[in-house]
Amino acid sequence: MQSDSIQVVLLSGGSGTRLWPLSNAARSKQFLKVLRDDAGRPESMVCRSIRLLRERCPEARITVATSASQVDALELQVEGEYGLSLEPERRDTAPAIMLAASHVAFEQGGSPDSVVVVMPIDTYADSAYYESVNRLAEAVRSDVADLVLLGVAPTEPSSKYGYIVPKADEGDVLAVQRFVEKPAPDLASDLIEHGALWNCGVFAFRLGYLLDIVSQYVQVASYADLRARYKELPKISFDYEVVEKATSVAAIRYEGAWKDLGTWGALCEELCEPISGNAWLDDETCEDVHAINECNVPLVVAGVSHVAVVATPDGILVAGKDHDANVRELVNRAALSVPGYERKRWGSYTMLQPDVRELVVDEGCELQPCASKGRAVLWTVAEGTAKIELDGETREVGPGEVVRIEAGMTSVVHACSRLRIIEVCCKQSVGE
Amino acid sequence: MQSDSIQVVLLSGGSGTRLWPLSNAARSKQFLKVLRDDAGRPESMVCRSIRLLRERCPEARITVATSASQVDALELQVEGEYGLSLEPERRDTAPAIMLAASHVAFEQGGSPDSVVVVMPIDTYADSAYYESVNRLAEAVRSDVADLVLLGVAPTEPSSKYGYIVPKADEGDVLAVQRFVEKPAPDLASDLIEHGALWNCGVFAFRLGYLLDIVSQYVQVASYADLRARYKELPKISFDYEVVEKATSVAAIRYEGAWKDLGTWGALCEELCEPISGNAWLDDETCEDVHAINECNVPLVVAGVSHVAVVATPDGILVAGKDHDANVRELVNRAALSVPGYERKRWGSYTMLQPDVRELVVDEGCELQPCASKGRAVLWTVAEGTAKIELDGETREVGPGEVVRIEAGMTSVVHACSRLRIIEVCCKQSVGE
Repeated sequence: MQSDSIQVVLLSGGSGTRLWPLSNAARSKQFLKVLRDDAGRPESMVCRSIRLLRERCPEARITVATSASQVDALELQVEGEYGLSLEPERRDTAPAIMLAASHVAFEQGGSPDSVVVVMPIDTYADSAYYESVNRLAEAVRSDVADLVLLGVAPTEPSSKYGYIVPKADEGDVLAVQRFVEKPAPDLASDLIEHGALWNCGVFAFRLGYLLDIVSQYVQVASYADLRARYKELPKISFDYEVVEKATSVAAIRYEGAWKDLGTWGALCEELCEPISGNAWLDDETCEDVHAINECNVPLVVAGVSHVAVVATPDGILVAGKDHDANVRELVNRAALSVPGYERKRWGSYTMLQPDVRELVVDEGCELQPCASKGRAVLWTVAEGTAKIELDGETREVGPGEVVRIEAGMTSVVHACSRLRIIEVCCKQSVGE
Repeated sequence: MQSDSIQVVLLSGGSGTRLWPLSNAARSKQFLKVLRDDAGRPESMVCRSIRLLRERCPEARITVATSASQVDALELQVEGEYGLSLEPERRDTAPAIMLAASHVAFEQGGSPDSVVVVMPIDTYADSAYYESVNRLAEAVRSDVADLVLLGVAPTEPSSKYGYIVPKADEGDVLAVQRFVEKPAPDLASDLIEHGALWNCGVFAFRLGYLLDIVSQYVQVASYADLRARYKELPKISFDYEVVEKATSVAAIRYEGAWKDLGTWGALCEELCEPISGNAWLDDETCEDVHAINECNVPLVVAGVSHVAVVATPDGILVAGKDHDANVRELVNRAALSVPGYERKRWGSYTMLQPDVRELVVDEGCELQPCASKGRAVLWTVAEGTAKIELDGETREVGPGEVVRIEAGMTSVVHACSRLRIIEVCCKQSVGE
């Protein structure tokens, strides 16, 4: 490891409900290709963040802190080198960052003096935001404080954010006096007048600083060790566990655009096209409507304004753009227990009924299907050809052929061309 | 046939697009069970009309004028005796009523003096509306005019309807001076002041009167004859072909409720529940919202008002309740070419993908599946048991079993219990 590199830990969490039904438990919002790159091609938040980081901060060595459920999506979307720190279970941001720090230390040879910058992967910000990583690293290297935060210059007295209150409001690096969580608008205005900044979840520190905190909970000698003892780390946010307890905190001011695209209202503002998929808007009677349709039936919208309509194999949402908060709670109650659509390393599946799925296996890819006890999986090949190995016997199948996979069978499917399969999961017949 | 019976012809047309996606080419709006009978059970417009007609006008002998596509739905919903006049192709109301008249004459022994009353089957009106059939018949029998119309007392100067303008506005039976189609609101107010009534498409006349008009186009000796020569009848509405050409027209006034439930706005006013199916409304941010969901994914609605949201296997509609007219045109462009859901005599089908359907065959029912040339139909039994006869050979199948039906095979399926099948229609494999 180069001694002057900057270790950037990108936090890739995501519950999947905030942009439901486009996001789900398997498809977090940061992987949705709803943005556009400079050439106008669809781009996800993950790709955008990593692209801008590599452009604006060439020193950065990236580690993504996430869970196993996102590995396929990352591999499909992100090219080039990056470290991967995988939470064995979802806890909170403090343990996730601690684990990522141990990955940097033990797997990537980071020294206690290495600078670590933690950033959310799903922020939508200007390139200056990514350039500020250099300034954060410089501040840490200059030992201005144990912890250096990026503070966003507020554009309104919002009650949605945490505020960083500096001791004085001049200079490039500001000493932090205190934090105020989600203040009422009057207080927020007051704080802004005194130079307060929004806390955007970007933290910089020396690797050794955080490893010392980890050692207060567990003594470990490797990344694998810490993963095995992950349960012993406190289930708490990095803000509460580290930032608010720190005795020496500084902040750097960032002036550009900064958005959380975690609500339909915010996301729609960045979408280039009001329509996506088989959707029909009545232009004469609709104003400020976005319609996204990933289902195979048409969507027609007329006579409504300031509304997002989103239909996917996970569900259908009709939401006034100002009411995202209410949607979230309702979605938690309404959402399917199993994702209706999932992009996998080998292709994708779409739920058609609780016991029927469409599987698409990409050309050259392999899949190992299995049936649970008392059940059989029946595959009808709708398109494409494949070699199927079933309990050791190999045969070739094409359109119109059926494969029956019983519980306990070992099976491997190799798609010779793009394979489309209709899968029905049945109870075994009586008497079998 | 009793000489004093009244022949009521119920016109059951319906393009299916006005209440799309709940209605479709196979499921006309009048068969949707969106109303409630006196006991609170779901009831369709068809059942309501026939029930009230039988209650309020026991003399009525009913003939339904429709097309073959509605025969299954009628049989499933309507009990008791009724005649069935089937258009061989869709033309317009004049030929449909002419054909029904020939059915009454040749198949049911109607005499030229029999009174015929024509009514739309999809009107939503008070029981007094059905009682007025007796008054219409009395007026025809008294020879007050060749044609007697029911006129609805207007409740507003609407520009949506045709107006019947009487010579004088007093008396039970009004001589008609002229008709005004969709007048501007000012003219409509004027007409209403002078006693004008809305034309609601209810016409009474002697059977011989209409048969004479038929004979101007074709000479036929049977209902079958007229069906065979249906193309020779003019493609024109009954209003233009008969009503406006008549020299002697009278009208009877009807004072009660009268609605066309052909728009979502009007229909929603009669729906008892704002929610149907797996739909979730945020009560705090929604006002006057109706959500109907017949899909198997959840529907969530928040932060919108005065909107109907309807999701079915045919499509998804989000419509401001005041903008029904615009929806219709858009739907005509967007709608699937094949109905996404259809209730059949044997059960129902739901499209899951263009080449995948879910079939549900009711217990004890039979179905004769077939594959088109170059294709094979693959059935996976998901639930239930059946006897399947395939090219003469019979076998029993249950959950997890697969039936392959090649083009040209004869097949009959007899459901021993409620049978649920996932059907995939495939191209034949290369080399087969």
